[in-house]
Amino acid sequence: MLTDLDLDSLWEYRSSYIRPDDFDSFWDATLAEARSLELKVEAVPVDTPLQTLDVYDVTFSGFGGDRIRAWLRTPRGASGLPAVVQYHGYGSNRGTAVENLTWASSGFAHLQVEVRDQRGGAGFMTRGIADRDTYFYRRVFTDCVRAVDAVRELGSPQVAVIGNSQGGGVALAVAGLVPDLAAVHTQAPFLCDFRRALNVCGRLPYTELTTYIAENRRSDIFPTLSYFDGVGFAARAVAPAWFSIGLMDDIVPPSTVFGAYHAYAGPRQIQVWEHSAHEAGGSDDLDIALDAFRSRLLEMP
Amino acid sequence: MLTDLDLDSLWEYRSSYIRPDDFDSFWDATLAEARSLELKVEAVPVDTPLQTLDVYDVTFSGFGGDRIRAWLRTPRGASGLPAVVQYHGYGSNRGTAVENLTWASSGFAHLQVEVRDQRGGAGFMTRGIADRDTYFYRRVFTDCVRAVDAVRELGSPQVAVIGNSQGGGVALAVAGLVPDLAAVHTQAPFLCDFRRALNVCGRLPYTELTTYIAENRRSDIFPTLSYFDGVGFAARAVAPAWFSIGLMDDIVPPSTVFGAYHAYAGPRQIQVWEHSAHEAGGSDDLDIALDAFRSRLLEMP
Amino acid sequence: MLTDLDLDSLWEYRSSYIRPDDFDSFWDATLAEARSLELKVEAVPVDTPLQTLDVYDVTFSGFGGDRIRAWLRTPRGASGLPAVVQYHGYGSNRGTAVENLTWASSGFAHLQVEVRDQRGGAGFMTRGIADRDTYFYRRVFTDCVRAVDAVRELGSPQVAVIGNSQGGGVALAVAGLVPDLAAVHTQAPFLCDFRRALNVCGRLPYTELTTYIAENRRSDIFPTLSYFDGVGFAARAVAPAWFSIGLMDDIVPPSTVFGAYHAYAGPRQIQVWEHSAHEAGGSDDLDIALDAFRSRLLEMP
Amino acid sequence: MLTDLDLDSLWEYRSSYIRPDDFDSFWDATLAEARSLELKVEAVPVDTPLQTLDVYDVTFSGFGGDRIRAWLRTPRGASGLPAVVQYHGYGSNRGTAVENLTWASSGFAHLQVEVRDQRGGAGFMTRGIADRDTYFYRRVFTDCVRAVDAVRELGSPQVAVIGNSQGGGVALAVAGLVPDLAAVHTQAPFLCDFRRALNVCGRLPYTELTTYIAENRRSDIFPTLSYFDGVGFAARAVAPAWFSIGLMDDIVPPSTVFGAYHAYAGPRQIQVWEHSAHEAGGSDDLDIALDAFRSRLLEMP
Amino acid sequence: MLTDLDLDSLWEYRSSYIRPDDFDSFWDATLAEARSLELKVEAVPVDTPLQTLDVYDVTFSGFGGDRIRAWLRTPRGASGLPAVVQYHGYGSNRGTAVENLTWASSGFAHLQVEVRDQRGGAGFMTRGIADRDTYFYRRVFTDCVRAVDAVRELGSPQVAVIGNSQGGGVALAVAGLVPDLAAVHTQAPFLCDFRRALNVCGRLPYTELTTYIAENRRSDIFPTLSYFDGVGFAARAVAPAWFSIGLMDDIVPPSTVFGAYHAYAGPRQIQVWEHSAHEAGGSDDLDIALDAFRSRLLEMP
Amino acid sequence: MLTDLDLDSLWEYRSSYIRPDDFDSFWDATLAEARSLELKVEAVPVDTPLQTLDVYDVTFSGFGGDRIRAWLRTPRGASGLPAVVQYHGYGSNRGTAVENLTWASSGFAHLQVEVRDQRGGAGFMTRGIADRDTYFYRRVFTDCVRAVDAVRELGSPQVAVIGNSQGGGVALAVAGLVPDLAAVHTQAPFLCDFRRALNVCGRLPYTELTTYIAENRRSDIFPTLSYFDGVGFAARAVAPAWFSIGLMDDIVPPSTVFGAYHAYAGPRQIQVWEHSAHEAGGSDDLDIALDAFRSRLLEMP
Repeated sequence: MLTDLDLDSLWEYRSSYIRPDDFDSFWDATLAEARSLELKVEAVPVDTPLQTLDVYDVTFSGFGGDRIRAWLRTPRGASGLPAVVQYHGYGSNRGTAVENLTWASSGFAHLQVEVRDQRGGAGFMTRGIADRDTYFYRRVFTDCVRAVDAVRELGSPQVAVIGNSQGGGVALAVAGLVPDLAAVHTQAPFLCDFRRALNVCGRLPYTELTTYIAENRRSDIFPTLSYFDGVGFAARAVAPAWFSIGLMDDIVPPSTVFGAYHAYAGPRQIQVWEHSAHEAGGSDDLDIALDAFRSRLLEMP
Repeated sequence: MLTDLDLDSLWEYRSSYIRPDDFDSFWDATLAEARSLELKVEAVPVDTPLQTLDVYDVTFSGFGGDRIRAWLRTPRGASGLPAVVQYHGYGSNRGTAVENLTWASSGFAHLQVEVRDQRGGAGFMTRGIADRDTYFYRRVFTDCVRAVDAVRELGSPQVAVIGNSQGGGVALAVAGLVPDLAAVHTQAPFLCDFRRALNVCGRLPYTELTTYIAENRRSDIFPTLSYFDGVGFAARAVAPAWFSIGLMDDIVPPSTVFGAYHAYAGPRQIQVWEHSAHEAGGSDDLDIALDAFRSRLLEMP
Repeated sequence: MLTDLDLDSLWEYRSSYIRPDDFDSFWDATLAEARSLELKVEAVPVDTPLQTLDVYDVTFSGFGGDRIRAWLRTPRGASGLPAVVQYHGYGSNRGTAVENLTWASSGFAHLQVEVRDQRGGAGFMTRGIADRDTYFYRRVFTDCVRAVDAVRELGSPQVAVIGNSQGGGVALAVAGLVPDLAAVHTQAPFLCDFRRALNVCGRLPYTELTTYIAENRRSDIFPTLSYFDGVGFAARAVAPAWFSIGLMDDIVPPSTVFGAYHAYAGPRQIQVWEHSAHEAGGSDDLDIALDAFRSRLLEMP
Repeated sequence: MLTDLDLDSLWEYRSSYIRPDDFDSFWDATLAEARSLELKVEAVPVDTPLQTLDVYDVTFSGFGGDRIRAWLRTPRGASGLPAVVQYHGYGSNRGTAVENLTWASSGFAHLQVEVRDQRGGAGFMTRGIADRDTYFYRRVFTDCVRAVDAVRELGSPQVAVIGNSQGGGVALAVAGLVPDLAAVHTQAPFLCDFRRALNVCGRLPYTELTTYIAENRRSDIFPTLSYFDGVGFAARAVAPAWFSIGLMDDIVPPSTVFGAYHAYAGPRQIQVWEHSAHEAGGSDDLDIALDAFRSRLLEMP
Repeated sequence: MLTDLDLDSLWEYRSSYIRPDDFDSFWDATLAEARSLELKVEAVPVDTPLQTLDVYDVTFSGFGGDRIRAWLRTPRGASGLPAVVQYHGYGSNRGTAVENLTWASSGFAHLQVEVRDQRGGAGFMTRGIADRDTYFYRRVFTDCVRAVDAVRELGSPQVAVIGNSQGGGVALAVAGLVPDLAAVHTQAPFLCDFRRALNVCGRLPYTELTTYIAENRRSDIFPTLSYFDGVGFAARAVAPAWFSIGLMDDIVPPSTVFGAYHAYAGPRQIQVWEHSAHEAGGSDDLDIALDAFRSRLLEMP
Repeated sequence: MLTDLDLDSLWEYRSSYIRPDDFDSFWDATLAEARSLELKVEAVPVDTPLQTLDVYDVTFSGFGGDRIRAWLRTPRGASGLPAVVQYHGYGSNRGTAVENLTWASSGFAHLQVEVRDQRGGAGFMTRGIADRDTYFYRRVFTDCVRAVDAVRELGSPQVAVIGNSQGGGVALAVAGLVPDLAAVHTQAPFLCDFRRALNVCGRLPYTELTTYIAENRRSDIFPTLSYFDGVGFAARAVAPAWFSIGLMDDIVPPSTVFGAYHAYAGPRQIQVWEHSAHEAGGSDDLDIALDAFRSRLLEMP
C-alpha cells in the first residue's frame, strides 16, 4: 500500500523546509576547516582472489582529521579513470573487498566509502544533536566531501556520486557541497525534509529523532537539523541528478524525496516505482545509474 | 479504525478502471471454448449422517476440461428446486459434506463449488499472470460459470450466486458472464478495482500482486488484470445484486467494493457495516441473502 | 511450529494440579442451590426459512435464577430425540437460528447454549475471581449444567455434550458435574491446568489471568481457580470422552489438554493434530463427534 | 508519525457529537440519587515510612452506595488545604500509599481515587452498555463526583481535578458535573468523541467498543455512549481547564481531544506535544498543572 | 536469541529422517528421463557495460524439456575455466547481468541459474505435492542437475556448486545427484529435515507446508517430501562440502542444517555463526567459499 | 508465559561467566584514575513548589572529569542523613526535580543520578566496545561510583544503592566496586551474564549486542564485556543485597539475574515474581527496599 501521498500529490508537494541564512557560511567554514587539515590519502593494495580488478584499502583524513576508510576498485592496472564514489546505508559498512564489483568492472575507479563508526550500531541520528557543530552528520558529510577530494588525489578528475537510503542522503549533501561533480544518483534518499519525515514515518531510523523529541519533550532539534537537510543541499546542487523512490517505502517517505527533488537546482529526473518499498528499483536503478554515468563520464570527449 | 475512505467519500468514489475494448470478446471466446467441451456432470450420492438432506459429490468439466468438484445439497428427495451456487474464499475449499446446510434446509438446491487447486496453498494471485490467457482466474471464473451450467443440468433452471471475499469476486464475475441469473449476493468481494486495491491494501492476498510487481519491477500486470476486474464484470451484470462490506476491512478495501457497486448495471443495494472488518455482516448477511433469494426464487410464481 | 511439548513428552506429562478437598462439596452445594430454583424452561418456536428443521428460542433459569438463552433445533416435527448440548468459545455467542444445522439434520435435538454476558466483550477470566463464590465461571458452569437439565425437561433423556475452546472446557466441567451423560466431545478445551497454561501461553484469553496477577502482584487466584480447573472435573467424569488438540495451538497449550486427558476418569481417546493450531481438526473433529454420538445415542437399542 | 489530523486541521476540527436533550436531566437524576445515599467518608491513617506526609486510606459511598477507595495524602499535620483529586488510567489503580507524593509535598490535600473494579482486568468499555442506566461509566463518573464531595467533607473547600487518559476523561466528566471546581487538568483524555475515536483508533481500549459492535452487528451503543461523552461534559464545564495531547498518540486520537477542547465552555488552553505518543508531555504536564493549580488554589487570597 | 538447540546439542542432534528404499531409483529414473531429452544449451552474449567480463544469457532444457535460464559470466575472452554453479533463494531470481561478479572476476566460469517460475510469487512449497512425481522440487532439482551438465557442455569440466537458503538446499540436492562435483558450499540450506523443520520453525516459507497440512488435515505429504529432503541427498554426496549456519536463524532452523551436515557422506566442515540469523556469515561465507573453491579448482594441478 | 527457565531450574542455574584475572586491577586502575581528578561537587538549590523537601541540582566530575548530573532531595532543612543513590533504566534520565519523592519523604538523602548521554537515544550497548578502555559502561560505572563519593562529600556517610533494569546493573557494579555500602536493591538488573543473555533474549537493548556481532561477524566483544558483567561484580560485593525479578521478563532474562544472584558474595535474597514481566514487583519492590533500607540505615544505632 502507498505509505505517503499518491503520485499526483507528490508532483504538487513542496517541502516547508527553509534554509537558514547562514547555511552556506556554516558549510563553507566547516569544509574550510576540514580542508585545512592534510588529507593524507593512503591506498594499500589488497590481496584478493580477483584477477580482473585491483582493490586498494584507502584511508584519508576526514572531519577533525579522523581517518576514514574506503575501498578503491579499478580495472586491473588501470589509472586515471573517472570515479564513482559510493556511500552506504544506515548502520551498514563498506562491505568486503571482493563484493560490489560492477562499477570497477565497467571501467570506473570505484571508491566505496565507510561511514565513520557505522559497522552495526544505532543511535547515530541523535548523536551530538544538541548543537549543529557537534552533530554526527556534520562529521559524516564532511568526511564524504573529503572522499571526493581523496579520489581526485588518487587520479580521477571526474567524479560522480551515488548512494541509497542514508547513502542517497549523503550523495545529495555532497552534491550540494562539491560544485563540480559530473553526476549524482540517489536512491530513496534518507535525511531529507525532516519535519515531514517525522510526521509521516513510523519506522527506524527516522523514529530515533521522534523518540528523542518525545523523551526530552523538546523539538529544538530542528534548528540543528536545518543545516543537514537534503532539501537544503539540493537547492545548492548543480550536477545532473537521477532520483529514485518507491511509493510504498515506509522507511523513507516518498514526499520527503520529492521535497528534495523539487528543490534540486541542477538538471534532474526521478524514477518512480509505484509498487516498491525501500528497495525502490533495486538493480534496475543500478542499470539507470550505469547508463547515466557512462554517457556522462566515459563516453564524453 | 476505518481502513479506507469514510462513508461519505465512498458514495462519491468511482473506480478509475477502464474496461478493455475486447473484454467482451475475450470472455465470449473463453466461454465458448469451455462450452465446446462436454460438461459431463456427475452427481454421486454421499453417505452422510444427515437425515433431512441429500448430499451429492458433483464433478463437472471446467476450463480446459479439468474436473471441478462441488457438493450439491438438497432437501431429502427433492429435485427441480431453485439453486444457490456458492463460491468460497481464497485458499479455502468446499468444506465437508455435512457443513453449511442452511440453503438446502431452506428449500434450495445448494451447490458449493471448490476452486481448483485451492485446498490451502498460496500464490494464486500471480499464477500465469504474464498473459491473460494463462492467468489463474481465467480458469477459475470459467469453472464457476460452468458450475451454473452444471446445476441447471442437474435440474435447477433458476440460479442465484453467492460468495464472500474471493467467492464474492467470483460471484460478481459470474454475474457479468451469465446473463440470466435470478440474484447475486456478494460479501466483501475480492478481485475488484485492482489498482486502487494495491494502493490502499497492505495485507495478503492483494500483496501477492504488490510483491510480484516490486520484485519484478514491472507493472505490466494491469493489462492482464483488466480482464478479471470485478468492476468490469459489474458493468455487464443484470441480475439484482446485494453487496455487503465492512468499513474496517483491511483485506478487501471498501473503496474497491464501492467501485464495483457503483459500476453495477443491474438493480443493486449495498449493506454497509461501519465497524466490521472482513467478516462484514457475518450471519446477518446470510439472513439478508436468505430473504432476498427466497422472495426472488421460492416465492415468486 | 510446536507451541508446547512434543508428542512423546505430552504422553508422559501429568498436571501438577491438586483438587481441593472440598471441591466436591463446593460443587454439590452450588448445584443444589441452583436446582433449588425453578428451571422454568421456555421454548418459543422461531419463524425461520428452514423447511426441514424446527428451531426454538429456549430460555431457562441458570445460576442465581438468571435467564439463560439457547437455540433448540430438531428435525421438523420430531420430539424425544437424543440431545447434543453445545457450548461456544470465549467471547462468542449462540449464533443465529439458521446456522449450525448439522446436529439437528442428523437426527438429534441440538441445544446451542449461549454463555451469559458473552456477545463480544472481554475480561471474563478475572470477573469475580477474588472469591470462588463470585467467580464468573461458577455461574457459567452452573448455567451449563442446567442446560442439560433443560434439554431433558424438553424431552431428551439421553444427552451428549460438545464444545470447542471455552466450550470444550465447559463440556469437561459438565462431564464432571453431570453423572449420566451419554458422551462428551471436547476440542482444544480451554480452562484446564491453569498453572501450566499461564507458564506456557502468551496469548489471550489466558493472559487475562497473567496480566491480572502481574498488575496486582498476587498469585492467590490459584485457590479460586482450583475449583474451576478442567483437570479437576476430568477426574470426576464417567461418560466416554473424545478429546482433540492441535500441537501448534498457541491459545490452548497442548500440555494442558493432555493434563486433563490423562486425569479423565471415564473411557477416553484423544485425536492429535500435529500441525494444527487452535482449530485442531476443524470439521474432521465434527465427523468424529458425529460418528461417536450416533453410535452411542442413535444406534444403540 | 502523526496518528490523526495535522495540527492545522485539529484547530479546525469540530466533533459531530450531539448532546441528547435529556443529558442534563439524566445526570441530575443520577447524581441526586447518589447523593440521596449517605457519603459515609472514612479516613484511616496509614502507617508508612513517610516522615513529611500523612496518608489516609479513605473510603466513601459512590454510585449505589458501593464503597470506593482512595488515598488522601497531606503535609504532615496539615488540614483544610486546597485539594487535588486525581483519577487514574484504564485498568490501573490508586497505586501504593508511598508513591505519587508531589501534590501533597507541594501543599495540597491529594486524593488519589481508585476506579471501581479496576485493578487489572479488561472489558470495562462494554460492561452494561446495553442501557445508559447500567453502563459501567455511569457508576464511575458518579463515584468520581462523590470523591469531590468526600474531599470537601474531609475539610478541603477548594478542589481541582486531574487525570490522564481514562483519568483525563473522568476529570472532564467531573468538570461537567461539579459546577464549582477551581481548576481542571486533563492529559490525553480518553472517553471523548466516541464516533470519531472508533473511526481513527485501532488500539485498545477503544477497540473494545469496535469489536463489540462488530461481533453484535449493532451500532446502537452510540445512544448509550452519548450520555458519557467528554464532548458533552465539556460543554457544561465552567472551571478553567488545561488540556494536553500528543499528536502521535495512537491510543487517544488527538482529534477527539480537540473535539472536547473546542466544546469546552470554561476558560481553556491546550498544550500540544507534536512528537509525543500517549504519554503527551509526561512530567512537563505535571509542571504545568502544578503551576496552574498553585496560582489558582494556593496563591490566591 | 537462539532459535533452536544450543551448540552442544546441535553437535549431538541427528535427524530422524529415513531415506525411502527407492530414493535412488526414483532419482535415477528422474534424471535418466531428463537426460533423454536433448539439453540444447544456448549461450547468447549480452551487451553490458562490463569491460572485464563477458556475460551470456544461457538457456537449456531442464525437467520435461522446459527451458531454464541462467547467466554465464567469465573473465573477458576466457574459456574452459572451472565453473561455479550458483542457485538462489526462495522467490528470488538470477538478478541482472551486471551484478554478482565476484566469481567470474576471480577466474571462474560462473553460472547463475534461475529457478523456474520464481520471479516473486509464493506457494512453491506445496505445488504438486500430492505426488512425488508432480512435486515442484522434482522439477527444480532436475533443472539444477542439468545446469551442471550445461556448464560442462559450455566447456567447464570441473564444477563446484553453491547456494544460500533454497539455493543451499538445491546445492545439497545436486551434490547428492551429481557424483563428480569438485566442491559444494551451502549457506543456511533450506529443504532439509522437513519434519523437524515444521516442528521448530514458525516462519515462511516452511509454514507453507504447515498451513497446507493444517488446512487439509493430512500429514501424508511427508512421503512425498522424503524424496526431496537434503538429509537424504547428503548421505549420497561425495564432494567436499562447506556448510554455514547462524544459530539465530528463524527461517532455516539450525538443527535441520546439522541434520544434513551429520548425514553428509563426503568430507565436510561447518561454519557456525552463533549470533547470526538467516544471513549466516554473509560475505564472510563468500570468502570461505572463494578460498575453498580456489584451492580445489584453480590451484590444483 | 515464562521467558526463560522455570523456577526450579533457575535455582540450579549457574552462569558460565569467568572473571578475567585482571578484572580487579582493571577496575582498581580505573577508579584510581578517576579519583585522581577532583570531584568538585556542586549542589545548587532548585526552586520548586515542594514545601516539605529541598531539592538540589548536583553536579560532580565523573570518568575523565566529565560533569555528571543528579538531583539530591532531602527533607526540608535536614542534613547528614543516610543516603540512597538511585540509578535509572536504559535511555531514561533523572526525571524532573519534583518527581520520585518517596525516599526523601521517608527521611533519606536521595541522590537520583543521570547516566551520561542518556536522555533518549540508543546504541549505548556497543559504544566504544572495541576496547575495554573505551567502552561506554566503563565511563558509566565510574561515574556512578563517584556519585557515591559525591553524596558522602555532601554529608551522608551511610550509603545504599538502588536501581531497576540498567539501574539495577549499575547498582550491582557499584556494589562490587565500593566496599562499604550499607545495602543494595537491584530490580530486574540488566548487564549480567552477557553470553546467556544474548542466547535467550530477543529484545532491545540486549539485541544491540547481538546485531552488532552479526553485522560485524565477530564475537570478540565478549572479552570487553567480561570486565562489565554483573556476575563479576556480584562476586566482589559484600553489602547485603535484595534482588527482584519477574519470570515473564523478556527484556532481562531471569536466568541472567539468577546468574548474578548465585554469584553474589554478600548476604542476599531474591524476590521472585512468577507472573511479572520486566516491571517485576513494581511498587511492591519499593516497599521491600524501603523496609530493608530503613532497618539498615535509619533504625540502627
